[in-house]
Amino acid sequence: MTNSALMERRNHLLGMGAPIFYERPVNIVRGEGVWLYDDGGHRYLDMYNNVPCVGHCHPHVVDAMHNQAQTLNVHSRYLNEEVLDYAERLANLHADPLTTVIFTCTGTEANEVALGIARAATGGQGFICSDAAYHGNSAEVGKFTRVGQQAENEKAESVRAFPHPQRYRPLRHGVTDEELTNLYLAEVESAIESLEAGGISLAGMLVCSILANEGLPSIPEGFMEKAAMLVRSAGGLVIADEVQAGFCRTGAWWGYEATGFVPDIVTMGKPMGNGLPVAGAAASSELVDCFRQRKRYFNTFAASPLQAAAGMAVIDVIENERLAANVAAVGRYLRDELRKLQDSCEQMADVRGHGLFIGMEWVTDPESKEADADGASEVVNRLRDKGFLIGSAGPLGNILKIRPPLVFRQEHADAFLTAFEECIRETVIA
Amino acid sequence: MTNSALMERRNHLLGMGAPIFYERPVNIVRGEGVWLYDDGGHRYLDMYNNVPCVGHCHPHVVDAMHNQAQTLNVHSRYLNEEVLDYAERLANLHADPLTTVIFTCTGTEANEVALGIARAATGGQGFICSDAAYHGNSAEVGKFTRVGQQAENEKAESVRAFPHPQRYRPLRHGVTDEELTNLYLAEVESAIESLEAGGISLAGMLVCSILANEGLPSIPEGFMEKAAMLVRSAGGLVIADEVQAGFCRTGAWWGYEATGFVPDIVTMGKPMGNGLPVAGAAASSELVDCFRQRKRYFNTFAASPLQAAAGMAVIDVIENERLAANVAAVGRYLRDELRKLQDSCEQMADVRGHGLFIGMEWVTDPESKEADADGASEVVNRLRDKGFLIGSAGPLGNILKIRPPLVFRQEHADAFLTAFEECIRETVIA
Repeated sequence: MTNSALMERRNHLLGMGAPIFYERPVNIVRGEGVWLYDDGGHRYLDMYNNVPCVGHCHPHVVDAMHNQAQTLNVHSRYLNEEVLDYAERLANLHADPLTTVIFTCTGTEANEVALGIARAATGGQGFICSDAAYHGNSAEVGKFTRVGQQAENEKAESVRAFPHPQRYRPLRHGVTDEELTNLYLAEVESAIESLEAGGISLAGMLVCSILANEGLPSIPEGFMEKAAMLVRSAGGLVIADEVQAGFCRTGAWWGYEATGFVPDIVTMGKPMGNGLPVAGAAASSELVDCFRQRKRYFNTFAASPLQAAAGMAVIDVIENERLAANVAAVGRYLRDELRKLQDSCEQMADVRGHGLFIGMEWVTDPESKEADADGASEVVNRLRDKGFLIGSAGPLGNILKIRPPLVFRQEHADAFLTAFEECIRETVIA
Repeated sequence: MTNSALMERRNHLLGMGAPIFYERPVNIVRGEGVWLYDDGGHRYLDMYNNVPCVGHCHPHVVDAMHNQAQTLNVHSRYLNEEVLDYAERLANLHADPLTTVIFTCTGTEANEVALGIARAATGGQGFICSDAAYHGNSAEVGKFTRVGQQAENEKAESVRAFPHPQRYRPLRHGVTDEELTNLYLAEVESAIESLEAGGISLAGMLVCSILANEGLPSIPEGFMEKAAMLVRSAGGLVIADEVQAGFCRTGAWWGYEATGFVPDIVTMGKPMGNGLPVAGAAASSELVDCFRQRKRYFNTFAASPLQAAAGMAVIDVIENERLAANVAAVGRYLRDELRKLQDSCEQMADVRGHGLFIGMEWVTDPESKEADADGASEVVNRLRDKGFLIGSAGPLGNILKIRPPLVFRQEHADAFLTAFEECIRETVIA
């Protein structure tokens, strides 16, 4: 079936507007490691997918899932040691206060639970978040979606946003980094005060540890830690959304290590099961107990032995293949090499990120810093045609997003850099 | 590790109050068909679990998942034929208007999507539901949880409940079935009017097709179809929650066939992937397109080739092993045999249900019909000790809930009946 016939079938069966990538979508039939293959046998270097974090179809994870699926897969209202072992292993990877886990299937559900934990513990209802955040697709978590772009009448009473901190398009020019941090912190205070002025007491802050959907900005020094302090001194709890930031994406286990703060609650998701739906929220046992006392939370498919088996296998591979070190080294290499190309291409502006999560501003020119979403999209589509899958993101849609599986090696980075250079030459000439 | 040591570990790692079954919880280590095995090698007949609908660890489903996990498991923003084939196969199993599917991971997420579809299509925000419903664990879907038991200040403005229709504890005694239907329909009208009086226009009705969490009541003739008509004539859409009712649980493919109506939107979940998180909402392509235009819905783990492979394999087994016919026959047999035992046990009141989903009221005596939740719990725990796993449910907590995998055969029913008789004798004597 041709791709256009497939698209027609897809529009009918999944609905018109079901999200799809690339002007010429790719019909993927097979995955292995960092590679995806289409129905014509063409190979693509996957530089987008964080979910298959240890590589597509990693045999250790596939075997663990298969063994468990043959043995037992049942809900969590029986005793089961595998699930406890997995919870313990996760807790041991986290900062001290985070000892207890509520499992879910998706990051959205994990954030629902985290909001519930913060509300139960504080008695507050209100949250603050960044103005360009995305934390999930449910009605409640959807209230945090890009608040800065919401119409006034669509903004939820219980959610107030602060401008996301960044150095590239800063709140004010010509100030020191410390002054810039303070300017952003004053915005956090305003958001908290605005809740209080509306008679809504603070439950906490929900924030992606590395501001992934905000476009991975370079964050003014000390912001995250000081913002967390402000939230706590106003009686709120700090929720770190590690759905994208976690599991060694940054080269550290957790995004909050990369950006320097310790949350009261974390949420985890995407890479946890290498593609199996596994997610969860972790907090201190006191916080979780308090939530469980107030709300009888049960999730049919979560905290299952199948989730535990896949989740354990993912951690095994990350540790055994020393992927944290690989991410740190290859990520640094790729960022450095990309920065060298900036001289030959004015549109390539701020190259930034953490580990193997790289963002690159695409602008009309480096002086005006005008976002060029169309240009970014052109690059993404040209690279797809060359066999390299990346994406675009950010509040202005102009940020090239590079986020390959953690098993992405220097040789893959080199292949990409060659193709990217070629792409720049064609784009600049065209 | 002893069970009490395990419970202590569990309380610490998953939080105190994480739901668990039975006074003496069971440490399950293996499942096969209708059987579960504990760490001491004891065998339990599983008469509770609807998720592993074709039986625990069914080899056809396990193989399909394994093959797919080895080949490809990726999100839905690429083309993929397996996912389309699965959507088409599901749509073909449904009533005509339901042609298009939005996949999710959990029933909660499917209901979130269904509410969104109804709101997008009608422009309304309000819903009606039954007073003893449960449709999921998110903040939005949680607004529909047992509205009849919510404190006044906790009830959501946008949700109004009607008393769930039933014959056992009817709204009024001494009326004909037709009059009873009309009394309940008048309550549906009141719920709609109450929304309108509050200035909230109707988006629809969310209802489990067989009123599972309401305790599987025997529904007065014609209620569901006529309630659907009332909702439509007030401008709303009808959402059938098939998360528990669907996939041949009733002996028909869908609960709405068993209770005689055709919904505008259905939601599906639990049994869909035999334990893999798979769920979704289906509607006409017009309704889905309308939703997709307004909301860019994406779910990382949903509409994946892994979900499609497991989902297809489940449908294969249901068809190849003719499970619908088995469910109808064994379900009828078990209900009939249970009714024969009522003479010897006054506490066994209304035995009812559909297919292999049986509810039985446990009461202090058949005249007063006073609910006996403690008695029901005692029966459930005694049966567990005899190696038979059932549950209790319903708004009063006194309904014995029997809901085995669909591969439950007459020989299993006979084994249970023997144990149940024994249990009755012991309970009555004790």
